[in-house]
Amino acid sequence: MKLEYTVFGESHGPAVGVVVENLPSGIPIDESFISREMNRRRAKGDGLSTPRIEADVPQILSGVFEGKTTGTPLCAVIQNGNTRSGDYDRTKNLARPSHADFTGFVRYKGCNDYRGGGHFSGRLTAPLVFAGAVAKLALREKGIFVGAHILQVGTEKDQPFTADSLAESAFEALAQKDFTVLDDNVGERMKAIIQEARMNLTSVGGIIQCAVIGMPCGVGSPDKDNLEGMIARNIFRVPAVKGIEFGLGFGFASAYGHEVNDEMRMENGEVVTATNHNGGILGGISNGMPIVFQTVIKPTASISREQKTVNLADMQDDTLVIKGRHDPCILSRASVVIESAAALSVLEALS
Amino acid sequence: MKLEYTVFGESHGPAVGVVVENLPSGIPIDESFISREMNRRRAKGDGLSTPRIEADVPQILSGVFEGKTTGTPLCAVIQNGNTRSGDYDRTKNLARPSHADFTGFVRYKGCNDYRGGGHFSGRLTAPLVFAGAVAKLALREKGIFVGAHILQVGTEKDQPFTADSLAESAFEALAQKDFTVLDDNVGERMKAIIQEARMNLTSVGGIIQCAVIGMPCGVGSPDKDNLEGMIARNIFRVPAVKGIEFGLGFGFASAYGHEVNDEMRMENGEVVTATNHNGGILGGISNGMPIVFQTVIKPTASISREQKTVNLADMQDDTLVIKGRHDPCILSRASVVIESAAALSVLEALS
Amino acid sequence: MKLEYTVFGESHGPAVGVVVENLPSGIPIDESFISREMNRRRAKGDGLSTPRIEADVPQILSGVFEGKTTGTPLCAVIQNGNTRSGDYDRTKNLARPSHADFTGFVRYKGCNDYRGGGHFSGRLTAPLVFAGAVAKLALREKGIFVGAHILQVGTEKDQPFTADSLAESAFEALAQKDFTVLDDNVGERMKAIIQEARMNLTSVGGIIQCAVIGMPCGVGSPDKDNLEGMIARNIFRVPAVKGIEFGLGFGFASAYGHEVNDEMRMENGEVVTATNHNGGILGGISNGMPIVFQTVIKPTASISREQKTVNLADMQDDTLVIKGRHDPCILSRASVVIESAAALSVLEALS
Amino acid sequence: MKLEYTVFGESHGPAVGVVVENLPSGIPIDESFISREMNRRRAKGDGLSTPRIEADVPQILSGVFEGKTTGTPLCAVIQNGNTRSGDYDRTKNLARPSHADFTGFVRYKGCNDYRGGGHFSGRLTAPLVFAGAVAKLALREKGIFVGAHILQVGTEKDQPFTADSLAESAFEALAQKDFTVLDDNVGERMKAIIQEARMNLTSVGGIIQCAVIGMPCGVGSPDKDNLEGMIARNIFRVPAVKGIEFGLGFGFASAYGHEVNDEMRMENGEVVTATNHNGGILGGISNGMPIVFQTVIKPTASISREQKTVNLADMQDDTLVIKGRHDPCILSRASVVIESAAALSVLEALS
Repeated sequence: MKLEYTVFGESHGPAVGVVVENLPSGIPIDESFISREMNRRRAKGDGLSTPRIEADVPQILSGVFEGKTTGTPLCAVIQNGNTRSGDYDRTKNLARPSHADFTGFVRYKGCNDYRGGGHFSGRLTAPLVFAGAVAKLALREKGIFVGAHILQVGTEKDQPFTADSLAESAFEALAQKDFTVLDDNVGERMKAIIQEARMNLTSVGGIIQCAVIGMPCGVGSPDKDNLEGMIARNIFRVPAVKGIEFGLGFGFASAYGHEVNDEMRMENGEVVTATNHNGGILGGISNGMPIVFQTVIKPTASISREQKTVNLADMQDDTLVIKGRHDPCILSRASVVIESAAALSVLEALS
Repeated sequence: MKLEYTVFGESHGPAVGVVVENLPSGIPIDESFISREMNRRRAKGDGLSTPRIEADVPQILSGVFEGKTTGTPLCAVIQNGNTRSGDYDRTKNLARPSHADFTGFVRYKGCNDYRGGGHFSGRLTAPLVFAGAVAKLALREKGIFVGAHILQVGTEKDQPFTADSLAESAFEALAQKDFTVLDDNVGERMKAIIQEARMNLTSVGGIIQCAVIGMPCGVGSPDKDNLEGMIARNIFRVPAVKGIEFGLGFGFASAYGHEVNDEMRMENGEVVTATNHNGGILGGISNGMPIVFQTVIKPTASISREQKTVNLADMQDDTLVIKGRHDPCILSRASVVIESAAALSVLEALS
Repeated sequence: MKLEYTVFGESHGPAVGVVVENLPSGIPIDESFISREMNRRRAKGDGLSTPRIEADVPQILSGVFEGKTTGTPLCAVIQNGNTRSGDYDRTKNLARPSHADFTGFVRYKGCNDYRGGGHFSGRLTAPLVFAGAVAKLALREKGIFVGAHILQVGTEKDQPFTADSLAESAFEALAQKDFTVLDDNVGERMKAIIQEARMNLTSVGGIIQCAVIGMPCGVGSPDKDNLEGMIARNIFRVPAVKGIEFGLGFGFASAYGHEVNDEMRMENGEVVTATNHNGGILGGISNGMPIVFQTVIKPTASISREQKTVNLADMQDDTLVIKGRHDPCILSRASVVIESAAALSVLEALS
Repeated sequence: MKLEYTVFGESHGPAVGVVVENLPSGIPIDESFISREMNRRRAKGDGLSTPRIEADVPQILSGVFEGKTTGTPLCAVIQNGNTRSGDYDRTKNLARPSHADFTGFVRYKGCNDYRGGGHFSGRLTAPLVFAGAVAKLALREKGIFVGAHILQVGTEKDQPFTADSLAESAFEALAQKDFTVLDDNVGERMKAIIQEARMNLTSVGGIIQCAVIGMPCGVGSPDKDNLEGMIARNIFRVPAVKGIEFGLGFGFASAYGHEVNDEMRMENGEVVTATNHNGGILGGISNGMPIVFQTVIKPTASISREQKTVNLADMQDDTLVIKGRHDPCILSRASVVIESAAALSVLEALS
């Protein structure tokens, strides 16, 4: 039975939530772990992200009994609070550039909830992180762990994962950080870039690098159940993601085969590769090495400068200045979101 | 009813083929177009790709009547010929580095056909191109066209698509070329890189840029039916693909919001964007602009140098020198393959 | 985009609910209609069904904005109340014969919520009826209506649908009845059978006949998207259903072709059939005639007599007397449940 | 990875065939077993079925290597021969009553192959039987066996399965019979009914009873992956099926709970039920008892009497006399077809 998850809700509706089907039975619901994960996604009020701070306490409605997953559909909801819908009424017909206001308007025939991005809001990543936390608890039982860090913000780059940082303890250390970088000095420079973007009434993008360790070999398929394809499909369900690459990724374009082929050898009775340029997946199937991928997150589309746009009420050219509360960069909150989508993908592939 | 396709076959088995379900009814099967497309994928014997040249004539077994698609499952098969299985017997237990030999061995419990890569062979892209050609014929009826070119080989880069080259006639001109680049001078330098790789007993990677024009607005969804996710999932089903990005893609990482937001305006009664950094998709839904994505293809894993590997028969370290016929670079054949996966994805999203 | 629905919840957990994906946008949420439908499913305290009476007011959490469906996932939850879990503690390890206690125990590795049947409870049909009501509102816009009546209880049989009763007004009249039969005299005799079963500490089964009128021709497919198969799959998701037949159904076994073939003719520019023995579906595709099917519902498995069973705690033979509140027959509440599953199936086939 | 199968082809096209995805790896392809199964479906020229006799030798194109399934998609095709398309040209526009001619015409916009029923032909059950034979070989390795017999033809009824006939050896004995009944005397009377129907230029329906033994407990789910729903969906993909019931099925309607509840007890360390009125499935999950279901097959729609119909070319009333070769009853060939769909369903549920 294949794991599947569905997020629902609108930013300014009654609640957001998630249903996860075909979870394994008997996974202990470690509430402090889940709470920690929810906290990692939450805005900190530190100027790096939106001042909209919410409690984000997921209420489990089903699928958990006596502290463990039952295996039946698990639904959790997070009530929406602290919404200032008035912020949006003034500009409700002005499609925000690079947002889904216009595409959502067409797709849903003008019926979708425009307030705060509605169903397209980054707020939908809160239930995703909840579901991801449960998936991580299930993977933990199998010795599989997921970690992520901010690889790039603007032009500033963190060091990539190495053998040392591809370890459960290193992932745990990352998860404890407010700003998930391997090199904190780089992190400070990234923060400066984000603050500068805020000052300049703009936003900035970045890259998250995510890894899965302890993955057994032989999971996936070359065609429809391609492991890279399954992960990619789920990662693109995260708002603002515009690309994904595995291992060396786009770096393969300028590489030669003899430089980047992953030679193999036996080590402690296991087949390992000397390098891991392929990011743990060959032919759509895991090879037992860490799964490593990078995903790019575009600059927050909400910026405070005047922009040219279209008024959807009368289909005329117009201009827009977005007010309200927005992250100048969502990278500081994105690591746990990407980890969550990755954890759910891996659990799906194993189901 | 959702379009779905399944490729089947092994490189050295009786045949490879494809079944496409839920095609539209009544699409004229333009045999010369299909033949042209099959030719584009075929090795040319020009030193840029494998000397294994095959007729690759797909036989349609079902789903076509009186020259048009019926709408029932369309199956086409391509007989395998010109196979020299003997090339593989000597090395059957030596897992080729960066190939799926080892992962396939584990996934299929040692039962998969190892000859020529078996089900993982690039040969499976022949039926994919057939299916893609039929999808293009269906899209053509809706005024939708798909084109692709080699954006990069090694360090050599073609110009990206511009408004001028995002046109049916420009796509047609590209499809007529043996080496699908916009700038033929760059193409010559790319060919030189490929020839040099061959001489050096190695291989080289590259990037394909693909575009879909005429796409209606409002197709896709933010979550499970995310248009970027649907395309990505299918693109990763193509062997050797290691990444995909839409629009500016990984370039978003070092960009600021005010630089890359796509401002909107009315033009001839349609909403258009001044720029198309988002590659035609916002919130997982098409916005009516050209869909543009780049996908990276790793250097051919088969190289003629000695490599360290593992013998799957006795699970001992070993070394391997791959003989047989191999492309030093598959980019010259990949444009039409990527176009095919894109065409099928778009038709799926519209179904 | 294909409509899909997922029910979640456990009988004695915090809530039950449903998520419906890919509903059409802009369907007005007629609250009084939904309330009427919820009422139809509710136990009446009339001795025909369980004394457990609940308010069953669904709270819509997402997918509705300004009184209309948005088209994004619609989630509604119904809080559980009036649960007397103590009723179940005494017998928690005694698998109730013909219930899913034992199969659920094995499937979910002993982790499922056993109280009140948990996820297997008929209570899960409350959110199903909510989802069905929304689906009916969507179908109504297309001139499609769904109705059902109790065709049989014990040996007592209602008249089957005829041309006269296959009409919107007739469906409406049925929906207004507390006991949904076409012939109220038969209904009284059915009620007597049910009361008698209660007196005898047993339960009784029956048959629901359901019809869909206004269905356009040409919906469905012979194979995977077979309309009969899609309806059947969803009907079997309703607890206690043990069979489904279309049109003459099992009556075809003893029939001759010349007696039961549905001859065709033109009528008002439409193709119609003189008879409708095939229940509106040929080759898995609707033919424009009313879709008519019967589904059998087994006697409530909970009966108050002593039964032999197995104790799941020690895997020993044991005996059980079920206490608590139970319907002696669920037919009086089942019409609207079957209609709901049918409405969702038809909307899925049209999506 | 979920098993899925797709049949393709048209009765008078080049070939019919099937693709099966996600079969287990390493299943030995027992060709004599497959050939035996194909023979069971084949018309015998004994007056009980169509005189169109074909060789029906499936050619395996993929997914088998060195005599065993690889686990990659298995495609097999059966060339069409012995087609007399001329039989159909005269009546090509006359929609045959109770056939899918009209619904297929609408569904496929007039583009489907009308000859011999095209994609709706019973001939498509040949590749289904092939796929079912492979599924049976896979189930055999798990100690699971599938059998079926003709339970009813016209008013003549075979004895139902009993504990004695629910055994591998009994299934094998049935499979060896030309006319698969448990009681051969009843079989002779059934044959007489069929011959009489032929004489009377009509056809007759019947019921197949099918069972799966050795099924492990705990397979399936209450909702989307409901085992009854999965089997039902696949059974309705078989042409002419109009109903399915599990265990006592429609007999539950007139039964009382205390009569039909399946009491439980321990036997050799296993939970068993004293009776099996629920046909081995409770709450959509197998309970370890034999899965038993009945499915009704309508009288062959092709009869040689004049019938009223509609001419699809000019949409006028018309009359039709069907010529050509037709089964007066397909029950004698249907047992193996139903077994095949059941075997594939069970293997899907286990995958």
